[in-house]
Amino acid sequence: MAKASTATRAPGRPLDAAVEDAILRAALQLLGEAGYGGLRIEEVARRAGAGKTSIYRRWATREELILAAVRHFLSETAARGARTVLAPAASLRDDLLAQARRLTAVLTPERAGIVAGLLLAMRSHPELAAIVRHALVAGEGGAMAGVLERAVSRGERRSSRVPGTVLQVLPGVLLLQVFVLGQHSDDRALARLVDDVMLPLLAEPPSPGRVRRSARSL
Amino acid sequence: MAKASTATRAPGRPLDAAVEDAILRAALQLLGEAGYGGLRIEEVARRAGAGKTSIYRRWATREELILAAVRHFLSETAARGARTVLAPAASLRDDLLAQARRLTAVLTPERAGIVAGLLLAMRSHPELAAIVRHALVAGEGGAMAGVLERAVSRGERRSSRVPGTVLQVLPGVLLLQVFVLGQHSDDRALARLVDDVMLPLLAEPPSPGRVRRSARSL
Repeated sequence: MAKASTATRAPGRPLDAAVEDAILRAALQLLGEAGYGGLRIEEVARRAGAGKTSIYRRWATREELILAAVRHFLSETAARGARTVLAPAASLRDDLLAQARRLTAVLTPERAGIVAGLLLAMRSHPELAAIVRHALVAGEGGAMAGVLERAVSRGERRSSRVPGTVLQVLPGVLLLQVFVLGQHSDDRALARLVDDVMLPLLAEPPSPGRVRRSARSL
Repeated sequence: MAKASTATRAPGRPLDAAVEDAILRAALQLLGEAGYGGLRIEEVARRAGAGKTSIYRRWATREELILAAVRHFLSETAARGARTVLAPAASLRDDLLAQARRLTAVLTPERAGIVAGLLLAMRSHPELAAIVRHALVAGEGGAMAGVLERAVSRGERRSSRVPGTVLQVLPGVLLLQVFVLGQHSDDRALARLVDDVMLPLLAEPPSPGRVRRSARSL
């Protein structure tokens, strides 16, 4: 193993990268367990199997380490989410299900613990809050914009525009299910969320022109 | 002031009740700031202006104190929510707005901090999680059941039954707005949530028989 890893070692001090990864992971774990205030550099070092010096060599302060760990978590979350959405969806329903699965896939119990730690930390650390919000708004906004544009191109909707609050429903309900109700929703629960909530909000009648005219003529 | 409070002192050791209240409040504050793991009895005592002995006389362990503080918070939340919903609503829309206002009123910034601490603590403390979930499911379920029954009695809906996931939308979106987006929603934002999301999910067409028949006859 050691030999193989030496053989495939690229330039740029990859052992350093492995240490860095272990430190960031330990910091995230602790953020989920002990919260921002309870995160101690000594404990990060212990869990990462690294010295405090190798932490402070990279990040001058505890705050810098936490911000780096959160950025790492957010980019990993985006990458993990992207991997779950592989096949192009055949319908708005399939596409919404894929989005719900993506959000559920990134909220494994371990990762949900980290997110809960983040939500608490965001309340007293504006810079951290801004980073998380920016990533989420951009990521989720982009994902839902794609869903709506594909629905238009399939002829399932006339416009890709919807009220902003509608875009908060899918992540909002999943947030409630995971963090308040303690449910890790399975595919049946996600299908209910799509069929009972998201499609009624987003699907348009199959032949809107005809139905509209008829309703107006009443 | 001291005299007035002595004069109005009721039987049942009210000074004890005041100390108890101060201790529970300090515990909740700390839960929101430092999380479950970071909550120290010494700090609770300091903030409450009480001795550690008067804490341990009432609650044998840190865990018991935290559970008592959470129960206190939940019953206070229910009472505070009940105070915001005074006048009977004239329509489903008014009633939904009142529910949204109630949920927003109980999530003041200070209380939202406590809830964020609770959400994190719930992940590693099942007993605490069960207490919070029970209170929320009973409270929110009851509130929405009332909204739907009143809509039926006004003739705005035929049935008070809706899919369970629909009932998660209002608290879910507010959860996202408060804890992820960091918004304390004003009345305009709440009106958008009701008009763009909740009414499309819950309102039924004014004369469903006619519209239904007409759609079928096309």
